[in-house]
Amino acid sequence: MEFHIDPIDKEMMEAAQARQKNLAKPFGSLGLLEKFSMRIAGITGQMFPCLSGKAMVVFAADNGVFEEGVTPIGQDVTALQSANMTFGKAGIGVLSAHANAKLFVVDVGMAFNCESRYVIRRKIRRGTSNIAKGPAMSEEECRQALSIGAEMAQLCQSQGCSLVGAGEMGVGNTTTSTAVISALTGLPPSSITGKGAGLTNEAYANKISVIERALSVNQPNRGDALDVLRKVGGFDLVALTGFYLEAARLHLVCVVDGFIAVAAALAAKRLNPLVCDYLFLSHRSAEPGYDDAVRELGLAPMLDMGMRLGEGTGCPLAFNILEASVRVLRDMATFDEISINQDVIVDNWEEDKGRLGG
Amino acid sequence: MEFHIDPIDKEMMEAAQARQKNLAKPFGSLGLLEKFSMRIAGITGQMFPCLSGKAMVVFAADNGVFEEGVTPIGQDVTALQSANMTFGKAGIGVLSAHANAKLFVVDVGMAFNCESRYVIRRKIRRGTSNIAKGPAMSEEECRQALSIGAEMAQLCQSQGCSLVGAGEMGVGNTTTSTAVISALTGLPPSSITGKGAGLTNEAYANKISVIERALSVNQPNRGDALDVLRKVGGFDLVALTGFYLEAARLHLVCVVDGFIAVAAALAAKRLNPLVCDYLFLSHRSAEPGYDDAVRELGLAPMLDMGMRLGEGTGCPLAFNILEASVRVLRDMATFDEISINQDVIVDNWEEDKGRLGG
Repeated sequence: MEFHIDPIDKEMMEAAQARQKNLAKPFGSLGLLEKFSMRIAGITGQMFPCLSGKAMVVFAADNGVFEEGVTPIGQDVTALQSANMTFGKAGIGVLSAHANAKLFVVDVGMAFNCESRYVIRRKIRRGTSNIAKGPAMSEEECRQALSIGAEMAQLCQSQGCSLVGAGEMGVGNTTTSTAVISALTGLPPSSITGKGAGLTNEAYANKISVIERALSVNQPNRGDALDVLRKVGGFDLVALTGFYLEAARLHLVCVVDGFIAVAAALAAKRLNPLVCDYLFLSHRSAEPGYDDAVRELGLAPMLDMGMRLGEGTGCPLAFNILEASVRVLRDMATFDEISINQDVIVDNWEEDKGRLGG
Repeated sequence: MEFHIDPIDKEMMEAAQARQKNLAKPFGSLGLLEKFSMRIAGITGQMFPCLSGKAMVVFAADNGVFEEGVTPIGQDVTALQSANMTFGKAGIGVLSAHANAKLFVVDVGMAFNCESRYVIRRKIRRGTSNIAKGPAMSEEECRQALSIGAEMAQLCQSQGCSLVGAGEMGVGNTTTSTAVISALTGLPPSSITGKGAGLTNEAYANKISVIERALSVNQPNRGDALDVLRKVGGFDLVALTGFYLEAARLHLVCVVDGFIAVAAALAAKRLNPLVCDYLFLSHRSAEPGYDDAVRELGLAPMLDMGMRLGEGTGCPLAFNILEASVRVLRDMATFDEISINQDVIVDNWEEDKGRLGG
């Protein structure tokens, strides 16, 4: 499969950099805000793009590896929370509303169904197969998940949204994500596996050994991201990967959430490295594998909030910061404008003294 | 001088915590967002406070230590940028507008005046005295700066703002801030002085030696924060300290910007430790003394953006996150609500299969 992505508009990015350098502040003093504005100019081809349309997509799926006891949470929770998201009552529902972003929840393969008519039904299968025993999905299913992800990026664009983010809901997906990062980077599961939502020491040891088994049973090919995703990933992860690649193809400004999202972004990078120019990391995850994955992406997260809920909850918080970055580039005075205004400085201390009473 | 602050409302904070624990997500999984919402409940005495009124205050002043060559920037820039802020053209002007926050710019002691009629005139003197040669200001001037800070917190409240932040504009104020942090913590200037906006190695060595001289000439009393502020601080720093203490007394939710703001917050903490319960740190500063000051405050910054412009520019970005935290506490479903809705999960896979085409 080929994933076409245009290089970002270097000329526009350089024009934005020239303006940033001419804004009345030391160049670089607004840190990531400056870098973001330049990259967004390159992505959109506009110096001052309007990012008013915002959307979040959540890919919900279940993972067969659930049966190995890698998580204390039941699979019914995936369906339950997906419904709650659409009712605006789960974390991402509340935060999307706060950010004035649309929210699309997609069933890419939940074990259960839910009655919320607002969940978009694209169920591939009732959860993947158990990666500790064999591949998560077939090649055909992997292609399906990728195109569901792509379809959702297209949906965002067709709804007028140029600032997008994505998240996941899938019990057991820190296990699949860790397996994917381990397979792609070669780092041993023991060094990048986290305790997730309060695992006991015993459960933690089990989680590591399950991931080791998944890697040894499936022998994913480190140089072939699709092989890795298909064998030890999940429907949610693959759909995220497809979403990032298509968002980049469509020149959308795309925010990556936490640990699981970063695993999918890393796979996307392996499929086309240009994708990274279109991605922005929302928050730093506390999962041990996060920093390793991020290093290869060459990106830095903007928030450090100790968040680990998933669902894409970091993205809506990042939307406001990306919008701020564009606004700084557009509205701050340049040095030229300032020197014109230098006559606002007057040396009227003596005459002021009386008025000031000093 | 006494600075009265009420303890925050423990009962309301515990009620908020009880609700957080009952929200349908693992407790703690939204990290700082959860902690913020509980503390804001304690500060305001309301579980779901309305934080719609927002304000930023910028204290502008000059520092006599400027004449020691600690910065390459001229003192006219203080007046120039203060005017630009009120015209919405400097960084904090743009970011305040983006956050829909009012912006008050106060001249507490600029060397020059500026013609912007929107700068609030409270000039104590045309810049402090050179701390490398003697105390920055008199005891009376220190009291004046504290009460100007307090007055601005009152102004915010009277304008209907319960979510406030403050910043500074004052050429040379990383030097005074470093001196204050060094004097308060006992850490040597050489270990906490930063290179600021691109100092050469020579200028950097000079900055350290100026701070060392300021401390040895003035012998500030480490146990007396007012003595420290008066001798090696500045009008902007002291006004910030007064602002934090009064904001806490008025039960405002108060955001602290970067390095200079944190020096003032540390002084405020020494004057009344209860102030910390009312403060929120916006972004992590790259200045080496930042982490040391923050450790004593017992607070963690939410953003890590490599920002070092000052002016309070981190605060408007933090406003949106604090608002989000309140909204999560208010709008997320509790476990009770969810269990009522558990019938939304239906096992209708077989009948769905036809529709899904799978």
